[in-house]
Parts: sequence; C-alpha cells; structure tokens
Amino acid sequence: MAEVKLLRSWSSPFGLRIVWALQLKGIPYETIYEDLSNKSPLLLQSNPIHKKIPVLLHNGNAVVESLIILEYVDETWKENPLLPEDPLERATARFWARYCDEKVSPSIWESFTKEGKEQEEGIVKAKENLKYLEEELKGKKFFGGEKIGIVDIALGWLAYYESLFEDIVGMKVVTKEEFPLLSAWAATFADVPIIKDNWPSKDKLIPKFQAIRDSSLKK
Amino acid sequence: MAEVKLLRSWSSPFGLRIVWALQLKGIPYETIYEDLSNKSPLLLQSNPIHKKIPVLLHNGNAVVESLIILEYVDETWKENPLLPEDPLERATARFWARYCDEKVSPSIWESFTKEGKEQEEGIVKAKENLKYLEEELKGKKFFGGEKIGIVDIALGWLAYYESLFEDIVGMKVVTKEEFPLLSAWAATFADVPIIKDNWPSKDKLIPKFQAIRDSSLKK
Repeated sequence: MAEVKLLRSWSSPFGLRIVWALQLKGIPYETIYEDLSNKSPLLLQSNPIHKKIPVLLHNGNAVVESLIILEYVDETWKENPLLPEDPLERATARFWARYCDEKVSPSIWESFTKEGKEQEEGIVKAKENLKYLEEELKGKKFFGGEKIGIVDIALGWLAYYESLFEDIVGMKVVTKEEFPLLSAWAATFADVPIIKDNWPSKDKLIPKFQAIRDSSLKK
Repeated sequence: MAEVKLLRSWSSPFGLRIVWALQLKGIPYETIYEDLSNKSPLLLQSNPIHKKIPVLLHNGNAVVESLIILEYVDETWKENPLLPEDPLERATARFWARYCDEKVSPSIWESFTKEGKEQEEGIVKAKENLKYLEEELKGKKFFGGEKIGIVDIALGWLAYYESLFEDIVGMKVVTKEEFPLLSAWAATFADVPIIKDNWPSKDKLIPKFQAIRDSSLKK
C-alpha cells in the first residue's frame, strides 16, 4: 500500500485542509505532529524553501503548500473529487480558493491581531471580502454544490476558528444578519462528521490564539 | 469555432503569459488592449474583484488570474501540454510557478523600484530566490524539460524584462557568472519564435519602466 504521511501542527487550519481531504477520500495516512518552534529535520528537508507545514509525503516524495497538496490529492485519488470536472468550473473553484488565501484570511487576521482604528479598518475590509463569498453561496449548500469541494476546504477554518475572534476579542465578523448564507454554510460545514471530528479543542486553541494576539499587539 | 478573446495591456508580462500559451497551442484569439489608467467596462465586469488584466473570455465566460488562466487553457486545449501528466510533477510545476509569483518577482521588483540600502537588500533577496531556480534547471533545457512548460511561462518575463533593470538602473541581477544555467535558459527561451515574436518594443518599455521607477522613488 502506498505510504502517506502528513506533517502538520495540532492547531494550524492549513494542516486541517489536508486531513479533511484525505479523510473525505478515505486514504489511510500517518500524522506527524510538528512543533513549529523547533522544526524537525524532516520538515526542513521536505520543504527547504518555505519551511512550513503542511507537507504531504507520498512514497517518500514531498508535496508542499496546502492548495497544491489538495490538487495533488485530488489528482492522485479520484474518489470524492474536490474540484469539478469542467475546466471553467475548475478555474472558478481555483479562483475562490486563492481568494480565500489572498484576501479573506489576511483581512480577518488583520482584524484579529490589531486594535482600535487598525482593527476597525481590518473588519471593514474583511466584510467587503466576505460579501463576495456570501454572493457565491446563493442557491448552494456548499461552495462545491451538494458536496464539499476545494473552496469549502480552503475556507473551512472560518467555520470554527472565527468563533475564537468572538471569544478573545468579543466581537463577531460573520454575523447572521449580515451574512445569512455564510453563517448557514459555516454551521452546516462545521457539523459534517469528518470535519467535526478533527477540530482541535477550543480549550487549547483559545489560550494559544490569545497569546498570538497579545504578542502582535505588543509589536 | 469557439470565440476566444484576451484582455491585456501592451506592456504587462502577465498578459504575455496567455499570449504565449494560446499561441503555443495554436488557438486563434482576438486581443483587446486595455488602457490600465482607464479600464474598460468589459474588464471591470469580467474581473470585478481584482479589476486586473489578463482576462480570458471564452465563449463569453471570463477566466482571470494568469496562473489560473494557464491551467484553464491547458485543460481546455490538450495539444502542447503546459503541465506534465504525472500528479507529482504537476504539483512540482505548480509549486515553482507560484514561487516565481510570490518570491522571485516581488524581490526583483523591490530591487528595481528602490535605491540605496533598500535596493541592495532587495538584490540580495532576489539572488537568494533565484538560486533555487538555478538549481532546478540542472540537466534541463527548460523548466518543463525539453519543451516550454508552465514554469517557463511564469518566469518568462525575466528573459527580457530583466534587461530593463540593466538599461535603467545600470546593474544586472542574473549574471552569467552567478547564474550560468538561468542565463542560458533566458537566452534560449527569449529566442523561441513564438516567444520572440511577442516581446513589446524596448523603445516603448524603457521610458515606461523608467517612469514607474521614478514615481516609486518619489514616494
């Protein structure tokens, strides 16, 4: 049997993307947890340029960068496709997956790690970015349609990690009033068995993200 | 026959990527030149989020973001593939294509639009980034092997636009001494008929990029 190993950290949503993809496809794999403050020689050797998790090792070959790993997983194991078949739909899915990484996540992170005026500006930007996703969900259960696809996986962190924002900063970005479709999507997505089973414990996440925020604010 | 239109500007290397891809595949298309200081309603409507060129219109459907367009072109027209067939090789090609956009281009741009210490730091970073590409070329004519592939297309601008750096700033980043393989690649790539035929005129590019640099330095 092919040997599949996943290097990830316990808390990173980027690592979770690969966990979900492999489990949705029913691929057995071994998890290697990395301590990101003391990266292993295996991680540094597998991803010498970016030195980041997640890394997928398949028969000893390293694949890095989570969106690229998702495409690799989808091309290698065909069951439960993460991308649609049609080239135009594939391009659209790739567009939104990159949009989540290049626009949505940085703007929410900006709101989370700042305070005062900078935070307010971050929230305005985050909401502008999220409006396009709200629009994209019209008439759909998931971004992938009836089934979870690459955009759901790319944005999946929001369905769980956004509540840390609420717990730690005391405010909510994705409100039911402003984002009814995204809110419904988040509730549905977070509760799908394979997704739900893999969320890290909030008891551990809250102090970790509180510390990240505290340290950002001191800079 | 399918209707293919390409929105681009005369000077942008991102637009050139799509010109090359379509021409390498022998796809007839119509070019619509955009004035980026006065974007057309068609551009704004086709790419409402990023409002950027290039945009590929295929039977009226818009595909945006140059690397995503390249994958679309490759999936839609199979002749002269831009990506390899093997999933691991595809992941590697995607990795380097993104690396060119996320690391190489910004660091060279940083060197070009700054002066003094900032420029020196930019050049050091650019050279560090380029060393990985030099390594990747070992034993190969193109990044794609014997034929031009997506990484060659993503990095292609360097084979021509880097000389603007030399003409305008008076120094060379990709020297034959430090980067013998990249220098040989650039010379070979720039001279491939379909590539060569589409370079914009340096007589027009030099004043344009001189003006960009002057305006960046004033900020």
